[in-house]
Amino acid sequence: MSQQQRQEIIDLMRGAPSSDDRTPAGQRASFDSQFKDYPLGDDVTVRPTTLGGVDAVDITVEGADGQGVILYLHGGGYVVGSANTGSQLATALARRAGTPAVALDYRLAPEDPFPAPVDDAYAAYRALLDSGRPASDIVLAADSAGAGLALAVMLSARRDSLPQPAGAVLFSPWADLSLTGESMDARQALDPIFDREQIQWYADQYLAGQDPLDELVSPVFADLTGLPPLLIQVGSYEVLLDDSIRLAARAAASEVDVSLEVVAGLPHVFQYLAGQVDEADEALDRAGRFLVDRLDARSYEAARQAS
Amino acid sequence: MSQQQRQEIIDLMRGAPSSDDRTPAGQRASFDSQFKDYPLGDDVTVRPTTLGGVDAVDITVEGADGQGVILYLHGGGYVVGSANTGSQLATALARRAGTPAVALDYRLAPEDPFPAPVDDAYAAYRALLDSGRPASDIVLAADSAGAGLALAVMLSARRDSLPQPAGAVLFSPWADLSLTGESMDARQALDPIFDREQIQWYADQYLAGQDPLDELVSPVFADLTGLPPLLIQVGSYEVLLDDSIRLAARAAASEVDVSLEVVAGLPHVFQYLAGQVDEADEALDRAGRFLVDRLDARSYEAARQAS
Repeated sequence: MSQQQRQEIIDLMRGAPSSDDRTPAGQRASFDSQFKDYPLGDDVTVRPTTLGGVDAVDITVEGADGQGVILYLHGGGYVVGSANTGSQLATALARRAGTPAVALDYRLAPEDPFPAPVDDAYAAYRALLDSGRPASDIVLAADSAGAGLALAVMLSARRDSLPQPAGAVLFSPWADLSLTGESMDARQALDPIFDREQIQWYADQYLAGQDPLDELVSPVFADLTGLPPLLIQVGSYEVLLDDSIRLAARAAASEVDVSLEVVAGLPHVFQYLAGQVDEADEALDRAGRFLVDRLDARSYEAARQAS
Repeated sequence: MSQQQRQEIIDLMRGAPSSDDRTPAGQRASFDSQFKDYPLGDDVTVRPTTLGGVDAVDITVEGADGQGVILYLHGGGYVVGSANTGSQLATALARRAGTPAVALDYRLAPEDPFPAPVDDAYAAYRALLDSGRPASDIVLAADSAGAGLALAVMLSARRDSLPQPAGAVLFSPWADLSLTGESMDARQALDPIFDREQIQWYADQYLAGQDPLDELVSPVFADLTGLPPLLIQVGSYEVLLDDSIRLAARAAASEVDVSLEVVAGLPHVFQYLAGQVDEADEALDRAGRFLVDRLDARSYEAARQAS
């Protein structure tokens, strides 16, 4: 994929009609319409389920029958999206990691603001643990606001002395609801999807007047000590770029293994462009390899026992 | 490798006798002694050569006969080290990338301060280009001060409108000779090798009174636009940690593809611990894979021609 081809995609996105209906219902309809009829593949089975009392979908790809499980938390600013919209990337990762995924339908703001989505995501994680599955067989994967939730789940597990998952893949994490990243303004002319005003609207729905600096809301300010290895992928054409960079810096300062991959000239959660943009497929390949490495139970368990 | 095993390595390093001889000759002797009689392997051939008028060694690993070449720039604070001390990591990368390497004996400070080492490294890169080799067959790899040199080579090539190499692997880059990274003090108690005073001594030798903010000396402050994909690996137990983090941030802001990998609890250029610490071997494996990807001439050339 050349710079020119990346630019064509960006121009296409900039020209795409966006919904002027700034109600949650309007934003949801607009977001959902992008995923309508997206084919997951003939070899994919999707079954409704519940996990910790939360609606979810089980995703299995034929032949991807590893003993691990990917808990996928979709993006959408805590206001839009669903297990269904998360299924595309959950399937892409399940296929590459060779193991099933479960995509969660956590509650959304403004009907259910913070901490309801965190409560749901954490309940789902605890349900996986309660089923007798070792934590070393569980990985988290998430995009955007979902990645913020994934971090909140790991911080909650640490608080309660529960075991951590084997690792987490975070696509374009939204990890600062106080919107203080330099890129929020510096990248605005380059970001084809979001600007500060839109992101502030999502933050307002989710916070409903609560503190944007709570570490379960803005983990970019948290001490991340004790979290498992993280893989963060982000595009350079994002107002949220600095959330990823600061998160990587916090992880490093907290003695957490972290890989940050910035792909130039691509937008928020560019992994959705798989099949159209080579870099999206390559990023998913690397994320899949990371999950395989993390789910290699033997070496991980040996390390845990020795430490 | 467990946290405990990592800690044992760190403790061993902290206890290692360091040379009190703070002359360039004393530091060189101490540094060289760590590499004495290090076996590169029976399948490795090392031959003295010159490249652009600069002494170097050609390194070939049996069966690693790809058409690419790795130009390796050793570390040592611009004062110590040699093509010989760089051969260990150059060989490790050549083996994994399946292609020959050449390690450079650039001139050292204080006898030859900035810009002499940059002149030598850049002359070597131009000699590779002048030999008729396409830039897409050349990758740079380097550690510590050598990684600063690699960045200076790429910035020089951009200034002169020469083609960029296909990519660069930077192990624990020293990229800020003004020593302004937060980690310089914040990580001092954790770093088993360096402190600010020692690093300032190396900077003084190299700068000889020149501006520490020159972008060829401190590329952490440079606009990196136009550079090829970068892979940066760094340990979290480094006073130089922030050089890597800020470099990744600069690359991202300059629309350069960049991957930053922080490995927790390991020291400066931990890749030297390959064979003793699993994370070092794994990091070299990832670096080798990155070089293979970058040297995949077909896809890279196609992208270059289309852009």
